[in-house]
Amino acid sequence: MRPEHVLTMEDWGREEIHELLDKAQDFANHPSKLPSQRIYAANLFFEPSTRTKISFEAAERNLGLDLLHFEADTSSVKKGETLYDTVKTLESIGADVVVIRHGKERYFDELRNHINIPIINGGDGCGHHPTQSFLDLLTIKQEFGMFDGINVVIAGDIFHSRVARSNLEVLERLGANVFVSGPKEWMSEELMERYVPMDEAVEFADVMMMLRIQHERHAVKMVAGPQKYHEQYGLNEEKAQRMKPTSIIMHPAPINRNVEIADALVECGRSRIFKQMKNGVFVRMAVLSHVLENQQGGLLR
Amino acid sequence: MRPEHVLTMEDWGREEIHELLDKAQDFANHPSKLPSQRIYAANLFFEPSTRTKISFEAAERNLGLDLLHFEADTSSVKKGETLYDTVKTLESIGADVVVIRHGKERYFDELRNHINIPIINGGDGCGHHPTQSFLDLLTIKQEFGMFDGINVVIAGDIFHSRVARSNLEVLERLGANVFVSGPKEWMSEELMERYVPMDEAVEFADVMMMLRIQHERHAVKMVAGPQKYHEQYGLNEEKAQRMKPTSIIMHPAPINRNVEIADALVECGRSRIFKQMKNGVFVRMAVLSHVLENQQGGLLR
Amino acid sequence: MRPEHVLTMEDWGREEIHELLDKAQDFANHPSKLPSQRIYAANLFFEPSTRTKISFEAAERNLGLDLLHFEADTSSVKKGETLYDTVKTLESIGADVVVIRHGKERYFDELRNHINIPIINGGDGCGHHPTQSFLDLLTIKQEFGMFDGINVVIAGDIFHSRVARSNLEVLERLGANVFVSGPKEWMSEELMERYVPMDEAVEFADVMMMLRIQHERHAVKMVAGPQKYHEQYGLNEEKAQRMKPTSIIMHPAPINRNVEIADALVECGRSRIFKQMKNGVFVRMAVLSHVLENQQGGLLR
Repeated sequence: MRPEHVLTMEDWGREEIHELLDKAQDFANHPSKLPSQRIYAANLFFEPSTRTKISFEAAERNLGLDLLHFEADTSSVKKGETLYDTVKTLESIGADVVVIRHGKERYFDELRNHINIPIINGGDGCGHHPTQSFLDLLTIKQEFGMFDGINVVIAGDIFHSRVARSNLEVLERLGANVFVSGPKEWMSEELMERYVPMDEAVEFADVMMMLRIQHERHAVKMVAGPQKYHEQYGLNEEKAQRMKPTSIIMHPAPINRNVEIADALVECGRSRIFKQMKNGVFVRMAVLSHVLENQQGGLLR
Repeated sequence: MRPEHVLTMEDWGREEIHELLDKAQDFANHPSKLPSQRIYAANLFFEPSTRTKISFEAAERNLGLDLLHFEADTSSVKKGETLYDTVKTLESIGADVVVIRHGKERYFDELRNHINIPIINGGDGCGHHPTQSFLDLLTIKQEFGMFDGINVVIAGDIFHSRVARSNLEVLERLGANVFVSGPKEWMSEELMERYVPMDEAVEFADVMMMLRIQHERHAVKMVAGPQKYHEQYGLNEEKAQRMKPTSIIMHPAPINRNVEIADALVECGRSRIFKQMKNGVFVRMAVLSHVLENQQGGLLR
Repeated sequence: MRPEHVLTMEDWGREEIHELLDKAQDFANHPSKLPSQRIYAANLFFEPSTRTKISFEAAERNLGLDLLHFEADTSSVKKGETLYDTVKTLESIGADVVVIRHGKERYFDELRNHINIPIINGGDGCGHHPTQSFLDLLTIKQEFGMFDGINVVIAGDIFHSRVARSNLEVLERLGANVFVSGPKEWMSEELMERYVPMDEAVEFADVMMMLRIQHERHAVKMVAGPQKYHEQYGLNEEKAQRMKPTSIIMHPAPINRNVEIADALVECGRSRIFKQMKNGVFVRMAVLSHVLENQQGGLLR
């Protein structure tokens, strides 16, 4: 028997059409007939990502959520559809939560009051990236049990990274002493009040948070090329040896090896870089279950 | 213990090879040993889509189907593989149903007699798009309970859109009175027999079906730019106010806001635009369960 | 009630932050609280593929594995992240096995001793492709029950295809008699020792393994255009008629129809081309369950 394809409307008779519509209406009326009550997450990533995207996906799958696979490159965004209409569409189709990464800072301002499902910010340009902050916080809390009195040095291009500044703010709010380091050319007057040279920083820091040189975001004029940067402002083996025995190294990744940090340090005993990635899954599970419980009561299985 | 990677044939001894082949043959012989009898859907989208693609995906997941993720951009189509060989491959690998959107009109003619799994047309260029028609029909039937005597005005580029013409044909077949509106330059002689100016159309239409200006499909010469188009042929607030109390507005989306339809009308009380998207999931569930029941008996869980 | 979005750190109070971190830590401490112990596979395809990618996916789903959807084009590889860091990231996030296709020959040498989850090679440039070999072997074993004394003729560009040479080596190791055919210009001295002209080959071969002309890999100078190639070195209907009644035709696909093989032969009675694709799923199930059982004991459901 040939399969019955569904190709054109001409193939469908009047009665068959009504039968199909009744079937569809039946699905519309009794969603409980579905084999299981699924919860759908849609991850809308308009910028490249490995860690954030896949770790949201792992968090969603770990919680038993199902995914609707949105791909910006093959979506109607290509036909000029707005972000708002895209998110509204996903809401209409059945997404219960959306995760969005978008190059436009505060893209969410036009969405937050009109979208009726939770939006989780997976990064807005140089703006916010709350789940990255949460995973940094979890990694520090795991290590020291608290934030009070912990010396955190954030090293790199803090000025252009609101994520870094948001991290700085929240760490201080939680009780940590936060310092900054890196090329002075990249600091504001306000940041200079907490400035310490790398040579000193490594000796008293409990946490060295190295930032990524974001070549792709803004044309940072390298003070003197990657090698010179590494020597002056990066973390090399000599400097790492002068760190306190209990101190740790963090980096959000992707890493420019031998620029911000020496290749040999990425997986050294002090490094929590891959631990941060593991923690990324756990904080995203916490964030997802937080918003879904808030919104939908017993929805989570 | 190091994991045993599988990297080259040189690493495998004669006996190990035969053991692995026996294991594979065992899977071939006893598919019932699989943890569950999965049903696979593959969505082959060769053109951008958000709504159709994601709503097929939601429909499939709602019915308990599993997905095989085909991405045209990273497939062997890039190496020149034909559509036929691609679909035959998916059939061989285990797809139980394929949904295809393709730019070529009637792409399915070369497939329908040679592929042994159901093909659901997700749009063939300017040709057919049956599940879009079904969701339009369901939305109208939900509103009025029937089609007989309902006045439907389809407004926009009907001539170049076989989908619109196919909608026109099926609505008439089901008993509706179908009219067209929009720039006269875009009408055929046959279409002109049902022509009504927008100003009149809004007053007697039960359903105003606004079409999308498909910039990406064919270089439509805008009669006089988007703003002028909106004034003359689009649906603005003034015109919407003259509609009958029970009349509704439909649009297949993506929307060109303030071209076919005023921004403020997209989510107004008369608009069924997002309702159409919801209905898209239900008709696709109906279509999928229709073809799978037809083809495979008790296959659906 | 508005949903509680998660957008910026500023929105979060000190106590709420600690609550969320505790929740995350709870997930970190008790993975057993998860609704089910999932096993994750990640398929990293840095080159176009339909068959290999989708059939790994089908094999994984058949075995009850879950997928983490890595897309090279939208990953941090675009920001310059190395293959090693990408794979290490997937390991950290929770992948239990990775399948990799990469254009660089022996890409796996830098990974094999540092990655703690099994790597399955889905093809390394012109190098190895073990699961393709296994599916070829399974197809021959199904047909003849053994390899001893079976005459296999590999026809095409063997010299530039290490996959073909690896196939040749393993077939011989298992007892088959292996010959080569095709343009002499493409043969090495060593290969010429097993050379047979196509006209003779078809008459004594039990298995005709036709290779794909890999236009995309290296600028093969066609001896005299596709049509001439087909006549001289391809398998056409006239030659197929001279094959022994029990002989079979194989091809790894994608096929250049009417170049390596006549269009009419692709689905003829002797052809095992689509059978090979089916077998691809079974050998990949065998390979996956092999590495996961080896590595993780009772992990497979």
